[in-house]
Amino acid sequence: MGCKVAVYPGTFDPITYGHLDILERAARIFDKVIIAVAVNRRKGPLFSVEERKEMIEECVRERGLSNVEVDSFDTLLIEYARTKGASVIVRGLRAISDFEYEFQMALMNRKLYPNIETLFMMPSEQYTYISSRIVKEIASYGGNVSCLVPPFIAERLYAKLGVKER
Amino acid sequence: MGCKVAVYPGTFDPITYGHLDILERAARIFDKVIIAVAVNRRKGPLFSVEERKEMIEECVRERGLSNVEVDSFDTLLIEYARTKGASVIVRGLRAISDFEYEFQMALMNRKLYPNIETLFMMPSEQYTYISSRIVKEIASYGGNVSCLVPPFIAERLYAKLGVKER
Amino acid sequence: MGCKVAVYPGTFDPITYGHLDILERAARIFDKVIIAVAVNRRKGPLFSVEERKEMIEECVRERGLSNVEVDSFDTLLIEYARTKGASVIVRGLRAISDFEYEFQMALMNRKLYPNIETLFMMPSEQYTYISSRIVKEIASYGGNVSCLVPPFIAERLYAKLGVKER
Amino acid sequence: MGCKVAVYPGTFDPITYGHLDILERAARIFDKVIIAVAVNRRKGPLFSVEERKEMIEECVRERGLSNVEVDSFDTLLIEYARTKGASVIVRGLRAISDFEYEFQMALMNRKLYPNIETLFMMPSEQYTYISSRIVKEIASYGGNVSCLVPPFIAERLYAKLGVKER
Amino acid sequence: MGCKVAVYPGTFDPITYGHLDILERAARIFDKVIIAVAVNRRKGPLFSVEERKEMIEECVRERGLSNVEVDSFDTLLIEYARTKGASVIVRGLRAISDFEYEFQMALMNRKLYPNIETLFMMPSEQYTYISSRIVKEIASYGGNVSCLVPPFIAERLYAKLGVKER
Amino acid sequence: MGCKVAVYPGTFDPITYGHLDILERAARIFDKVIIAVAVNRRKGPLFSVEERKEMIEECVRERGLSNVEVDSFDTLLIEYARTKGASVIVRGLRAISDFEYEFQMALMNRKLYPNIETLFMMPSEQYTYISSRIVKEIASYGGNVSCLVPPFIAERLYAKLGVKER
Repeated sequence: MGCKVAVYPGTFDPITYGHLDILERAARIFDKVIIAVAVNRRKGPLFSVEERKEMIEECVRERGLSNVEVDSFDTLLIEYARTKGASVIVRGLRAISDFEYEFQMALMNRKLYPNIETLFMMPSEQYTYISSRIVKEIASYGGNVSCLVPPFIAERLYAKLGVKER
Repeated sequence: MGCKVAVYPGTFDPITYGHLDILERAARIFDKVIIAVAVNRRKGPLFSVEERKEMIEECVRERGLSNVEVDSFDTLLIEYARTKGASVIVRGLRAISDFEYEFQMALMNRKLYPNIETLFMMPSEQYTYISSRIVKEIASYGGNVSCLVPPFIAERLYAKLGVKER
Repeated sequence: MGCKVAVYPGTFDPITYGHLDILERAARIFDKVIIAVAVNRRKGPLFSVEERKEMIEECVRERGLSNVEVDSFDTLLIEYARTKGASVIVRGLRAISDFEYEFQMALMNRKLYPNIETLFMMPSEQYTYISSRIVKEIASYGGNVSCLVPPFIAERLYAKLGVKER
Repeated sequence: MGCKVAVYPGTFDPITYGHLDILERAARIFDKVIIAVAVNRRKGPLFSVEERKEMIEECVRERGLSNVEVDSFDTLLIEYARTKGASVIVRGLRAISDFEYEFQMALMNRKLYPNIETLFMMPSEQYTYISSRIVKEIASYGGNVSCLVPPFIAERLYAKLGVKER
Repeated sequence: MGCKVAVYPGTFDPITYGHLDILERAARIFDKVIIAVAVNRRKGPLFSVEERKEMIEECVRERGLSNVEVDSFDTLLIEYARTKGASVIVRGLRAISDFEYEFQMALMNRKLYPNIETLFMMPSEQYTYISSRIVKEIASYGGNVSCLVPPFIAERLYAKLGVKER
Repeated sequence: MGCKVAVYPGTFDPITYGHLDILERAARIFDKVIIAVAVNRRKGPLFSVEERKEMIEECVRERGLSNVEVDSFDTLLIEYARTKGASVIVRGLRAISDFEYEFQMALMNRKLYPNIETLFMMPSEQYTYISSRIVKEIASYGGNVSCLVPPFIAERLYAKLGVKER
């Protein structure tokens, strides 16, 4: 059926063990997975696009995920996916609140471009409580985030936020 | 039982096909429907109250909705509805997240003024994924919004956002 | 706009204060409200259709709801509503779980017959926890149901279930 | 990466346009899709396993889905999927209530056999309100189910239920 | 403030690691916890009340939970809790669907007897997917339930269901 | 079992009848309850920490809640609770949207410090629609908030917002 390319988009500010769990699962199913950092200027991310890509690249290297490509985009997701020749968009679903917003976006994307399908994957249950927002909140108080993000990202978080881990 | 007046409130920044679907359904049930633009300064709307009213008026004219009146308000919704002699407030319900906030507001309004009832209506399933927020997001990238808002509103969106439709 | 007839359907096995709250609210908005008992043989109701209608009629009399008619039906709801010349079906919404099933049914009914609109109303918050199922469960243990159903229905419940109120 | 086999399991009593929508989408993504009828004796299905498979086979033929295989199973889903060499289980997600049960099952299946991933897909929004249960309920009253199931299945439903379409 | 007694009610058909997780957490907070098996004849449980109590007692012994008492009840929960001098009813919350039913019951119980408070606790995230129903379903196919219930309960399940573990 | 200390954290900007309902219920169950104002600079609260504490203290005095202590914190909640020797964190649950965020935070806190348990309590159903946000919104229009907050808080709200009650 030809090579199946999947795009896994997100803000990844920063990438967490929950995102990495989905990424690894997707990489086992599809021929190629492009993890794509949304620039998202309006959200005022903590890390720059370059920093976010760098951290992801480090994680991908460490895990030896040879069919994963790291990229960024600053357009409509569906346009980006089309340009990349993707047939699938992968999204992680943790909670009901995710569910509704994700469904609206997926229906919208299907309307704009029907040939790309959105597939939802479930992170391991030990990661259901992780979100980049919670990671940043805990790190901002110097809290221990070692079960949420890889060690080198924890360090970059403390440095960026100007706090010391307690 | 006398003339039944319904108020259909919202920010309408801008009005979408989803809102228009609810408006037309309400206009078939009640003697008079007042579609009322909430000024909502804090939300920082893209279009001014006047612009939002103008766009709605154009849609109402095009559809020949003779028992619909376009207005705006800058007070508590329930006070406004009372002033207008309304017996009903109409709200569209698309999703669970709508549901909870809407119920809190409706219970609150009933507490403040028990004689006005909130009725919930369901948009056509083809509009469940539309929201003004998503329309603006897509338009800001020059995406095609022709299945979400009337053509003249799409044009005003691109102009306002300073983008060209691709 | 002509006389507006609303149908308020349900199993009403038996009618509760929650149902009566919705019924009274609907009777203030529409010219005529038909409260329609679904025969629902498959559900194995505790009370017969005749008993359920009788109890509702008694409640309607007590409350002096002059524009309410009590009826029953054993067909598709939407067919029944059409036969009765209704333009509206009224449903109470208490909870998320209600919400989803109700929406499916309402979309289905709209597909079958687009001219009848389903409107959702919210019971008073003091009745959000009432359901006929919970009433029967409590009554089956002789529990006090006086804040859930009118006194004469409580008595009929205990009699039917062969228990004594404690 | 080798041939990717997906299992799409369900009771399919009977198969609806909603199921067929998911099936066609899955068939575009995976090399081979096995649609697998769960015997489900406890649920007391209306149609026998053989009848359910027959109806699906007819639909698959009509649509020319050459990479779809129709089968049935009477064991644990995950055991069945393993036997078939599947790497993916496909499930349709329509509503919140689906979501929770599906997640529990998917987590359970992952616990039992971690190498098979569950992927969730979204049916077209026009099918969100369809379920086999609603189809059977409407058909049992002779209601029109032509927008829910293919014509030959509608006929088999009326015949099985001993009703005439009105 | 006197001795605080909590009742932890359920059908426990059979008790799972999820229930035991809640039980142990409650036993650390309250002076005494009564785990109370609801007879629940209507649900047609797999194990008799005596068997369910026996299995719980064995688990309580194994874990050395010295402030836990095992009992059963066949009345309204709130009446039972009152008789036992409890000030608290403990319930585990796993999912949204739990949430709504649990809230209805808790509000109802508060109405019937305001002095007993219902407290909700969260099981460990590794147990969110467990329910007695899923355990029985997997066991009925001879599936491996060793991460869901203690070994001696797994054996009793297979024996009761007349299957062999594969 | 030693003295049981519970922490009831929140922004309390300002405290409402809903919060007070939970506080009183918690004070009947635990030996000591510390109601702890989160500084929450990022949220840009209307009232300063000192003002929020003052208003709570006044309410606690009025109600004669002798085992309640008022405090504030500007660290991770779980660190604060540990410092205070608490074994329990109390949270009110009103709605599904609360539920998910609360569960994420509670799982996170358990990960960081497993010896402190989060317990969820249900406010009286008459307070399910109250939130500090809605109170501030209504007050900003001079609306009547007398069923939402104590009279002296209503006055402080109008003063702070520079509006007159209508």
